[in-house]
Amino acid sequence: MQEAAQAILDFNGLGLSLIEISHRSKDFVAVMEEARSLTKSLLGLPDRFDVLFLQGGASLGFLTSAYNFMPEGGSAAYVDSGTWAANAIKEAGRLGQAHVIGSSKETNYDRIPELSAVPAGSAYLHYTTNNTIFGTQFQSIPQVDMPLVADMSSDIFSKTFDPAPYQLIYAGAQKNMGPAGTVMYAFDRDAAGKTGRSIPSYLDLEVHAKKDSMFNTPAVFAIYVTMLTMRWMQSIGGVATMEKRNNQKAGLIYNEIDRNALFEGHAQVESRSKMNATFRLKDEKFAAAFDELWKSAGINGLKGHRSVGGYRASMYNALPVESVQVLVDVMQELERTH
Amino acid sequence: MQEAAQAILDFNGLGLSLIEISHRSKDFVAVMEEARSLTKSLLGLPDRFDVLFLQGGASLGFLTSAYNFMPEGGSAAYVDSGTWAANAIKEAGRLGQAHVIGSSKETNYDRIPELSAVPAGSAYLHYTTNNTIFGTQFQSIPQVDMPLVADMSSDIFSKTFDPAPYQLIYAGAQKNMGPAGTVMYAFDRDAAGKTGRSIPSYLDLEVHAKKDSMFNTPAVFAIYVTMLTMRWMQSIGGVATMEKRNNQKAGLIYNEIDRNALFEGHAQVESRSKMNATFRLKDEKFAAAFDELWKSAGINGLKGHRSVGGYRASMYNALPVESVQVLVDVMQELERTH
Repeated sequence: MQEAAQAILDFNGLGLSLIEISHRSKDFVAVMEEARSLTKSLLGLPDRFDVLFLQGGASLGFLTSAYNFMPEGGSAAYVDSGTWAANAIKEAGRLGQAHVIGSSKETNYDRIPELSAVPAGSAYLHYTTNNTIFGTQFQSIPQVDMPLVADMSSDIFSKTFDPAPYQLIYAGAQKNMGPAGTVMYAFDRDAAGKTGRSIPSYLDLEVHAKKDSMFNTPAVFAIYVTMLTMRWMQSIGGVATMEKRNNQKAGLIYNEIDRNALFEGHAQVESRSKMNATFRLKDEKFAAAFDELWKSAGINGLKGHRSVGGYRASMYNALPVESVQVLVDVMQELERTH
Repeated sequence: MQEAAQAILDFNGLGLSLIEISHRSKDFVAVMEEARSLTKSLLGLPDRFDVLFLQGGASLGFLTSAYNFMPEGGSAAYVDSGTWAANAIKEAGRLGQAHVIGSSKETNYDRIPELSAVPAGSAYLHYTTNNTIFGTQFQSIPQVDMPLVADMSSDIFSKTFDPAPYQLIYAGAQKNMGPAGTVMYAFDRDAAGKTGRSIPSYLDLEVHAKKDSMFNTPAVFAIYVTMLTMRWMQSIGGVATMEKRNNQKAGLIYNEIDRNALFEGHAQVESRSKMNATFRLKDEKFAAAFDELWKSAGINGLKGHRSVGGYRASMYNALPVESVQVLVDVMQELERTH
């Protein structure tokens, strides 16, 4: 935050703000290039991947991913594991057939669904690695005989994974990467450009890649802070260190949810997310007391999404272990006093 | 800049950064609402307009504008006055017929073209109010018997205008509004939703309007600084004050280009932009001396775009009159010494 604030006042000692210099100045081009290359090194992406920082969030990514990898007249397989996954299916359905090979909608998305066989001819399997609203997360990479496309908006950089099966990974910055306003695309340049589609320029990943992610004016500030965040991650040991911390945090909160007789989880145990723990009081009569306790402990935004109710503890990369401990202490305090 | 930097460290005294709070927190919702309402009041937009702050720049706006206002199987009229205007035509051409009713491409876009009659059945006339690369600007609103759609990315808030003929005004923030990363759409809600098209969600202005410009995570920081810039504009007398300053600045530089025997303008006199003055040395042998003079005077980025050559003095709202005077002094110094 200190570095970001300083860059607003005077960037790189230029006597100019980061937000008033040209995005084509060598100082900002260096930021963009460092952000692109840190993404590749932190995720261990092989050379076939190009990395871009664009705009429009994953919501535009739902359309962009289908435009770039679903052939004209073709189809792809999709997993319906939550609100955003369902939105991805809706947008892809405009361009071709989006086969839903698994859905947990009927149980209010309380689990990662079982997957049925992928229909022949599907170009890729699309899935949402983590579902923030429901607190569920894929525990392993789906084993299918086709390339994967994944929306990793809410758990990118939270754990190491093998990039081999992926054709496209995309992620809005605002959970684990940086401020709102940019979305990262890492795509297989050898697999792109083969759909036979005429792709609108802004939605064409190859158009952006040819311009080194500067086809039009990028989200300068958001990309700069994302780059700072990646520098920080690298300095403390990269994604493996984040994963260790995230395991610790998730261990703390789920242990308490399971141990404390006043609470129960929303997400099924085998689908639990390490980014968002969803839980509720077994008896609503303790709600006022609990809400007072966590608010006075300085906890923010613990209320669950309206479609789930209860509570949601979000534990993105930036949240320290100590903050989860504060919540656990509060839950134990409620137990002691009620 | 001071306020923006402070918000990164501690926003509204919350003890949290602007870039770590939720975009749905009441503190940020207030920012978004103030940005939307200041846009309406500064531009004097009637009630039929909804204002949104989205992402993707004007480059995505080219597609969005056609999706929302060109009927399925229909057509619209376009003016080809520069690089970005030509890009708008290209993107609209994917959705229907884009009739080009005027182009100055053959004279390297050195003027705003004469317009021929608009073909019957055109849904709207699209034009780019200011052409940064070539230094040309519409001097008045085109008089046609149909709604107007305008990309005002590079001259919004630079002068007052009558919003009556417009159906859609859009503008990337990074010239006169705020930092890169957000694009403003002001559209006639009564005229939208009538194309008969199935519009991808992110490109559907009505989808965003129904969610008060929060359909997905907005570009928080860019919108905040845009709002600060609008507050500043309002505090000094609004767009009318900006216009007066811009007239002064343009008067200074064009007067010198016309007076100084060493220089000549690129844009034709009757099409000159008050945002970007394009000019060149009549004799290239003075280039090294001139370049040294303006660089040592602390002037930045005066080189013209490669498609025009020469020089380009950009004089967006944030540039003080004094900075233009520095350039004029340097031009006079060159004359005196060469």
